[in-house]
Amino acid sequence: MQTIPKAIQHAREELDRSLVDLQRMFRKKSGIAYVGRVDASPQAHSWFRRFGDDVRFCYVNPRGGEAGGVPVFTSMAEVPDHIDLAVVKVAPAIVPQVIADCGRRGVRDVIVFSSGFSEVGAEGAALEAKVAEAAREHGVRVIGPNTNDNTFEQFPVPEHHRGGLVGLVTQSGFNGRPIVEGIAMGAAFRRWVTVGNEVDLEVADFINYFAHDPQTAVIAAYVEGFKSIAKLRLALEAANAMKKPVVMLKMGSTERGARMAASHTGHLAGADAVINGLFRQYGVIRVRDLDELLETVNLLAKLPAGTGPNCALYSVSGGSTTLMAELADSYGVSFPDLSQATIEKLYAYLPNYVTVSNPIDNGGGFVIAAPQQQRIEVLEAIAADASVDVIVVGLTAALGLLSDSFAADVLAFAPRSPKPVVAVWGSVLTDSPGYRDLVKSGVPIFRSFRKCFRAMRAHADYEAAKAAFRSRSWDAAALSASQQGALKQDGSLDSGQVAALLDGSGICRAGERLVTSSSEAAEAFAAWGGRVVMKLASPDIAHKSDAGLVLLDIGDAVTAASTYESLVAKAKTHFPAARIEGVLMQELIGTGVEMIVGLTQDRDLGPTITVGAGGIYAEILKDAATRPLPVDKDDISDMIASLRLSPLLDGARGAEPSDKEALVDLVFKLAQLGLAAGSAIAELDLNPVIVLPDRAVAVDALVVAANSST
Amino acid sequence: MQTIPKAIQHAREELDRSLVDLQRMFRKKSGIAYVGRVDASPQAHSWFRRFGDDVRFCYVNPRGGEAGGVPVFTSMAEVPDHIDLAVVKVAPAIVPQVIADCGRRGVRDVIVFSSGFSEVGAEGAALEAKVAEAAREHGVRVIGPNTNDNTFEQFPVPEHHRGGLVGLVTQSGFNGRPIVEGIAMGAAFRRWVTVGNEVDLEVADFINYFAHDPQTAVIAAYVEGFKSIAKLRLALEAANAMKKPVVMLKMGSTERGARMAASHTGHLAGADAVINGLFRQYGVIRVRDLDELLETVNLLAKLPAGTGPNCALYSVSGGSTTLMAELADSYGVSFPDLSQATIEKLYAYLPNYVTVSNPIDNGGGFVIAAPQQQRIEVLEAIAADASVDVIVVGLTAALGLLSDSFAADVLAFAPRSPKPVVAVWGSVLTDSPGYRDLVKSGVPIFRSFRKCFRAMRAHADYEAAKAAFRSRSWDAAALSASQQGALKQDGSLDSGQVAALLDGSGICRAGERLVTSSSEAAEAFAAWGGRVVMKLASPDIAHKSDAGLVLLDIGDAVTAASTYESLVAKAKTHFPAARIEGVLMQELIGTGVEMIVGLTQDRDLGPTITVGAGGIYAEILKDAATRPLPVDKDDISDMIASLRLSPLLDGARGAEPSDKEALVDLVFKLAQLGLAAGSAIAELDLNPVIVLPDRAVAVDALVVAANSST
Repeated sequence: MQTIPKAIQHAREELDRSLVDLQRMFRKKSGIAYVGRVDASPQAHSWFRRFGDDVRFCYVNPRGGEAGGVPVFTSMAEVPDHIDLAVVKVAPAIVPQVIADCGRRGVRDVIVFSSGFSEVGAEGAALEAKVAEAAREHGVRVIGPNTNDNTFEQFPVPEHHRGGLVGLVTQSGFNGRPIVEGIAMGAAFRRWVTVGNEVDLEVADFINYFAHDPQTAVIAAYVEGFKSIAKLRLALEAANAMKKPVVMLKMGSTERGARMAASHTGHLAGADAVINGLFRQYGVIRVRDLDELLETVNLLAKLPAGTGPNCALYSVSGGSTTLMAELADSYGVSFPDLSQATIEKLYAYLPNYVTVSNPIDNGGGFVIAAPQQQRIEVLEAIAADASVDVIVVGLTAALGLLSDSFAADVLAFAPRSPKPVVAVWGSVLTDSPGYRDLVKSGVPIFRSFRKCFRAMRAHADYEAAKAAFRSRSWDAAALSASQQGALKQDGSLDSGQVAALLDGSGICRAGERLVTSSSEAAEAFAAWGGRVVMKLASPDIAHKSDAGLVLLDIGDAVTAASTYESLVAKAKTHFPAARIEGVLMQELIGTGVEMIVGLTQDRDLGPTITVGAGGIYAEILKDAATRPLPVDKDDISDMIASLRLSPLLDGARGAEPSDKEALVDLVFKLAQLGLAAGSAIAELDLNPVIVLPDRAVAVDALVVAANSST
Repeated sequence: MQTIPKAIQHAREELDRSLVDLQRMFRKKSGIAYVGRVDASPQAHSWFRRFGDDVRFCYVNPRGGEAGGVPVFTSMAEVPDHIDLAVVKVAPAIVPQVIADCGRRGVRDVIVFSSGFSEVGAEGAALEAKVAEAAREHGVRVIGPNTNDNTFEQFPVPEHHRGGLVGLVTQSGFNGRPIVEGIAMGAAFRRWVTVGNEVDLEVADFINYFAHDPQTAVIAAYVEGFKSIAKLRLALEAANAMKKPVVMLKMGSTERGARMAASHTGHLAGADAVINGLFRQYGVIRVRDLDELLETVNLLAKLPAGTGPNCALYSVSGGSTTLMAELADSYGVSFPDLSQATIEKLYAYLPNYVTVSNPIDNGGGFVIAAPQQQRIEVLEAIAADASVDVIVVGLTAALGLLSDSFAADVLAFAPRSPKPVVAVWGSVLTDSPGYRDLVKSGVPIFRSFRKCFRAMRAHADYEAAKAAFRSRSWDAAALSASQQGALKQDGSLDSGQVAALLDGSGICRAGERLVTSSSEAAEAFAAWGGRVVMKLASPDIAHKSDAGLVLLDIGDAVTAASTYESLVAKAKTHFPAARIEGVLMQELIGTGVEMIVGLTQDRDLGPTITVGAGGIYAEILKDAATRPLPVDKDDISDMIASLRLSPLLDGARGAEPSDKEALVDLVFKLAQLGLAAGSAIAELDLNPVIVLPDRAVAVDALVVAANSST
């Protein structure tokens, strides 16, 4: 049964439309109208010039006339020429009207600088809604409001640029600036979009645009929140399909507020855990600060696609190579030993006391004393080693001749190196020839070893993720009538409703059955085939254990039948007035690995699934993984493998391995239930799920329904 | 009983001596001899001049004569003047002779540039030992060999410098260079020592020297390994006593090699875990990269001692303040809400739509449009808020007028601010007036938000540690005769020896006793007062459980006595030929929190103690804390609190809290045993230690002795 959610369908249509619109918007302009303040200053005119010398400009302002040779029209309707972009900087109250005027005049692309909308409160938000409405109604695409002119800034491609261009989208104009200032260290940008209040076009539209733009190699984003997660997912799928890494500085990795939740899952599945799960599914690289964002995208744009993860670490001092190895190791970056042949080749040039097995220390003196040809031959020997994918050159300090010569080697070697070269410049001093040479060399530059190896690790992870990219299916069997019935009300489900819901999805639960005869007892036992607990069922008897009315660990059908008889007889004797409903039989699940599995709703991402360590560890370790739905079985295996306590399932300390496949199957069935239920299940805990060597069984369950009618 | 280990005593004497020697060595020189290569170049002469214009120089070289107006003597003995420093750059083979010559000539301070010692292999190491011997014999203090001239470099104090100076010691000449290049961003250095091969003077001597040097405020170090841990400990104690933070980039945080160990403790207590434990005890701040080292020491040198941890986060854009808050939060840096009065004061200047409750966003336009007096008044209002200890100003980008004006505000305000100001400059562009103003302002500058808040967190941790600084006592009761007896051989101890060792230190163990009569059985039961297991003791009966010769869970003394009789009778009946030694009684410890506690030997730091989560989690989570001995009970509480599973002891999920005091007591007794045993205990596991609501009991023990005679 095909059940692609409407939100996804709608998002796909929106992205298809915005892609065409943005391709139009970013085409060469022929006419631009500047609506609002008339600015005849040289700055304003130089701003115009970024659109090319042959573009016609005009102002639209009630005062009319002309300004510095540019005509000023009193209204959009008056503008005689073809206009393909309007830049709006008027009082917020009249922005909806201007949008409408643009639409009527055939101007389909508008960027709104004006501020004073949702960022200033409720009144502004109401006005913003009117802007959105005007845009929709008149078929106008809007960037902004509350944005600036970054989106049409032309970025110089550095003279010696190598590799691809970075497409940058930010929700903060200021936070994007230090990224594009990275041009000074050799980064190259396709375009930087600052989205403003996203009244129409949003981050996901631009990710999708960059994904389809042939000149963009890497997508960078600074994001505080996503407007449409459905569009984001599809945009990330597009980036995956086009094999373009997405690197994001996403706010919200720390959550100060507590969540109100009835379930354990609700406490485990914080909003940021869900974002991490989403990013993991789409191979999105998450960074923590602006400098990391810049240096990581600069690396990814310059490393050829498919570059392997193995680094040669090369520097001029044993101290630096030690530090490089330490940091590479701490990020799990591989730096394999060089071959014996390479080592011998290197010692033909380098003193016998330096270490060259990787990391490679040339001792420093070599760089100062040897002719450059020899220094290049050493780099060639390193690059020729079959185990090396990338050469990382450490220029720790700005130490005059030493660092200048070493940088000059990079400048000379990089253009003809068969393997990519990456450089680290550790000094705050950047006014030396060495640093300038590095920038000129066009190689990716890092400003600390830590950032270099963090990014190299991200690169390796991305390459691994790229190989596993896939669309997850939205197909899920529809809820059965009894499942729909169970979810009909709001709030916690009773045990019968829980049973109907879970059994309807084939989720393996510990058996529980009320029997009313000895033959039913024997039959129930036979159905489970294991050991059982039998408990007299009566609303009138309180302390059943003390009264001997609970019998644990019954091991065969005959005993089960006779136990039924004896429990009922004992109850009748000792509690003659009590109503006796029968005997409750519960399947005894053996000792296994306790897990917790659950569903919850993320405000932005909808239904999510969580798998974690169960029992007391669920609370203390918060050892859990969360993903937004849909997921496939590989995702679930990946979630389980990411748990710190995952080795328990493999049979730690000589225990028999647990049936992970059964656990994956159970989680997948629950995920499919969550997908089919949509928002109808507010929270669901299977806690614990006990994983045994031959199966995985949900022992207890809590379900809170959120009927859409409430 | 006073048992200060000899190593500590010796280390104290060495440090006392080197302190005097270094104070002499770093005094103004009157005469310097340059032994070896004669270099009459202007560079060499400018090198001389760093010692002052009034210092006499000479060369010592067999060629004699003079060079560029400087006399060349053919030997040290010939030098007529008083010489208080010799700089040696001769062939390695003759360095021992030169040292001896220096000593005979009364030159007590020598720095050896020559390389070709232990860094080039065994032959060099043998030569190095001769250098050490010559130095000792002739009372000469040596820096090096294999060092350079950094140690006598004079560092300019930046013109607008505020705060204290940084004393830097590094084991790599190259890795120290980018630190002192931090002068360009306003850092100020007292001295930078590169220790070379540490044949005589070592890192600890210089930490101790800087600790006692009145002009040094903060001590920075790049270290790959410590020569004498005893000296290091005492040097760190001195730094603590003088209230000077020590910040270290210590290599070895990742360990590639596996350790061979019989005990769990041996696997848990890796060398780096011990270093972290040592650092924790002395409040040493550990950083991961050179840029972090620079920016952290620069902060600590400039923040007045006792500065509180609470930051006001102030920037020109909501995006930047969001990012600042996110990163501050991720490092647990406090940024409390401002008072209502402050907020009102700020809104008198700032637009009503920006957020000023902390973080504080001024919206940007204010910085460009408002007169500087108003901008300063805003900074004053922030500084005046009682909840604020430090103002962190975020200059995210190099954005022309905006960042230049904002930096100018810092320059104008910082000198008269009642609270320290810290600035973050996020751009790679540093050729703007804004950056220059920041440097001129003398405030600590960070080059990323992440580094700023990581360092602010280190500052807060250091201030907290400072309040708890104390010397740990080396006193421990000597081993009893029976404890000494137990440790007499090499290898694993048998159960009797284990019992003698642990009981001798009063470590609470689960009872175990071989009884030979029913009355002894009753008596043993009464002594423990809990439940017991009874097992027939015979070397001739193999499968005792199958033969019904093991009885679990006996709950009273009468049953214990009768069980003794029945076990013996049953054995006599069924195994008439077997020797019967009696019945082994073992105390049954109830369900509690399982821990592991142990001793191990660190190659450098000697005996260490480890506390960790027990059972299967010990292996999977490696949730353990290790400290070198000695420790006190507060250290042990701190170790326990640092465990992820520590909440289990507090009674998670409604369980009764465990007796943490008893656990601390048990660990302390084991630590004292380890201290008294010195190197005689190679490894010791108490695994598990079960912590109950009223006691902590070691249930099983493994001890490996390392008798010093083997």
